[in-house]
Amino acid sequence: MDNRQRFDPTKLITFSSKVLQKLGVPEEDADITARILVACDLRGVESHGVAHLGPFYANWIKQGTLNVKPKLRVSSYSPSTAVMDGDAGLGFVAGYHAMLDAIERAKKTGTGLVTVKNSKHFGAATYYAMMALEYDMIGIAMTVGGRMMMAPGSKGRAGGLNPIAVAVPAGKKHPFVLDMSTSVVAGGKIEIAKRQGKSIPEGWVVDDNGKPITDPSLINFRDPNWHGGILPLGGSPALGSYKGFGLSVLVDILATVLSGAAPKTSANHLFIAIRIDGFRPVNGFKKQMDELIDSIETLPTLPGVNKVYAAGGLEEEIVKDRTAKGIPLDEAVIQTLKDLSKEQGVEYDIDF
Amino acid sequence: MDNRQRFDPTKLITFSSKVLQKLGVPEEDADITARILVACDLRGVESHGVAHLGPFYANWIKQGTLNVKPKLRVSSYSPSTAVMDGDAGLGFVAGYHAMLDAIERAKKTGTGLVTVKNSKHFGAATYYAMMALEYDMIGIAMTVGGRMMMAPGSKGRAGGLNPIAVAVPAGKKHPFVLDMSTSVVAGGKIEIAKRQGKSIPEGWVVDDNGKPITDPSLINFRDPNWHGGILPLGGSPALGSYKGFGLSVLVDILATVLSGAAPKTSANHLFIAIRIDGFRPVNGFKKQMDELIDSIETLPTLPGVNKVYAAGGLEEEIVKDRTAKGIPLDEAVIQTLKDLSKEQGVEYDIDF
Repeated sequence: MDNRQRFDPTKLITFSSKVLQKLGVPEEDADITARILVACDLRGVESHGVAHLGPFYANWIKQGTLNVKPKLRVSSYSPSTAVMDGDAGLGFVAGYHAMLDAIERAKKTGTGLVTVKNSKHFGAATYYAMMALEYDMIGIAMTVGGRMMMAPGSKGRAGGLNPIAVAVPAGKKHPFVLDMSTSVVAGGKIEIAKRQGKSIPEGWVVDDNGKPITDPSLINFRDPNWHGGILPLGGSPALGSYKGFGLSVLVDILATVLSGAAPKTSANHLFIAIRIDGFRPVNGFKKQMDELIDSIETLPTLPGVNKVYAAGGLEEEIVKDRTAKGIPLDEAVIQTLKDLSKEQGVEYDIDF
Repeated sequence: MDNRQRFDPTKLITFSSKVLQKLGVPEEDADITARILVACDLRGVESHGVAHLGPFYANWIKQGTLNVKPKLRVSSYSPSTAVMDGDAGLGFVAGYHAMLDAIERAKKTGTGLVTVKNSKHFGAATYYAMMALEYDMIGIAMTVGGRMMMAPGSKGRAGGLNPIAVAVPAGKKHPFVLDMSTSVVAGGKIEIAKRQGKSIPEGWVVDDNGKPITDPSLINFRDPNWHGGILPLGGSPALGSYKGFGLSVLVDILATVLSGAAPKTSANHLFIAIRIDGFRPVNGFKKQMDELIDSIETLPTLPGVNKVYAAGGLEEEIVKDRTAKGIPLDEAVIQTLKDLSKEQGVEYDIDF
């Protein structure tokens, strides 16, 4: 049972947008950002929702490292592909417009790929991938981020956790929505264990001698003298860690190298939209998606397992719960919102 | 040290093509198939090379389950996308032509996606992805195959091992070439352990109660009463197995559902080509790829690790060795080639 205080999604969007506007973000951009942040909280991805509003985006604006009035520039050398320069603005704004551009290109050619350089943290990749669903397209979004991954066999960190999200429409069933870091675990889960004083499983983090760390208080990515890292998906070479590492490098290639971004300096993304009716009529596709999802979600389960989910099934249930009952937030997050309210002079009116 | 007898790649191609032609495959199709099989052996992917010529393709032709003279039909409803019907022919032939079609679409629109239904086993995905390299494109190939994967929390098998291959050109460095099943381990490695009487690591295979199996002699995917399976990449839920399972389902969506294939009856594939100069000039891209690969391959290593490789780096060394010294084959594989020679009346002339 989740006994935390619950908050109203619509009011949270209004509040977050107003805070960003007070900080100089244009209304339309503030609304886009607020909608994406709260959509994350609605899906249960609390590590990437309004919890970041104060510590990440508001702080970066105050520190002057985030451009509140970016000029997004698009260069394109083929009908289906483009590069966007995010002009050091909010990653949400660049991401939203880049995905819309990919969707427009897909309408014309069947597929659209837009890579973004010189951007900032764009929250969770899911939202952008899911933007394609209402157009009966497959959506893909990925970003470089969190340079905390060890390469298999290396003594130091080699790349980012580099998440990939894919959304595919279904008919009566929930859409297939996969959102995964290319590491064993996302950085947020380690932060949560640290906050709660719990140990983490062996196989998540190693020090620079490859020794497992299970006490999260020994992990400090901000300390330049601490050289451990998170393992790639797969964990060990025997269990396929070259695959997770390869996927991480692939995201870096598609987001950073393809966009021509300077390495390791900015957040870079890739957005893809693929028209389903470029291949077959949409209705037949959706019917077959329903059958595939159903075949997974009716699998016999091991003892103690309630249900096997196709990707996105569990999050769909969380969205239903939170839409009906409000979004639960941690005390620490509530405090940052209260602080922002006072600091920016925005009324604290977010109760459910 | 590899002390096995070595064979001449060119002679192996000629031999394999002649065997297929004797079985009724047209010369051009036999040549395509033979070239792809031997290219696999050259890269060290022996599980998908000439070892399969007798037991897989020749047998299927003799059994009448493989159409030696397929009529490939392409339907396209957008400039960048198409579906090919493989007409139950050799997957190599459908795959080769589908990837060429994707490359042609990319020349025109920037991107090409061709999904193939009603095909057969196409060998290793690497070859098709790498076809894009000479066009300065990124190549991607994936296929459904090997319905041996357990879903996290399920008591039975849920999907395929569904490999994905991606090839990205570099300049002076080797291309980035990632080829990975979406499971902890490819099926071929279990077969090899079985043949050699060695145990397998815990975390590869479980029985239908989720209990690990380390004795490969207890594994029998062809026995309908044996319900165990290979774990998805990630291994356990705590280490991210929903990610490997999600990737497996994604490949099934892109190859089977997008092509409109009947589920679980044929091999279905997806091929993608992406023009690099749709984003930025090729020279700058390749220079940055070289820097990225170099940054990985000069990482400090853990004790006992010689070098950290970017994907494809190790295989590049194997190709050099085997091009210079010939392709080593197992005794059992040599015997199948000798049998084919006698059976089909093709001269056994493959020595290095």
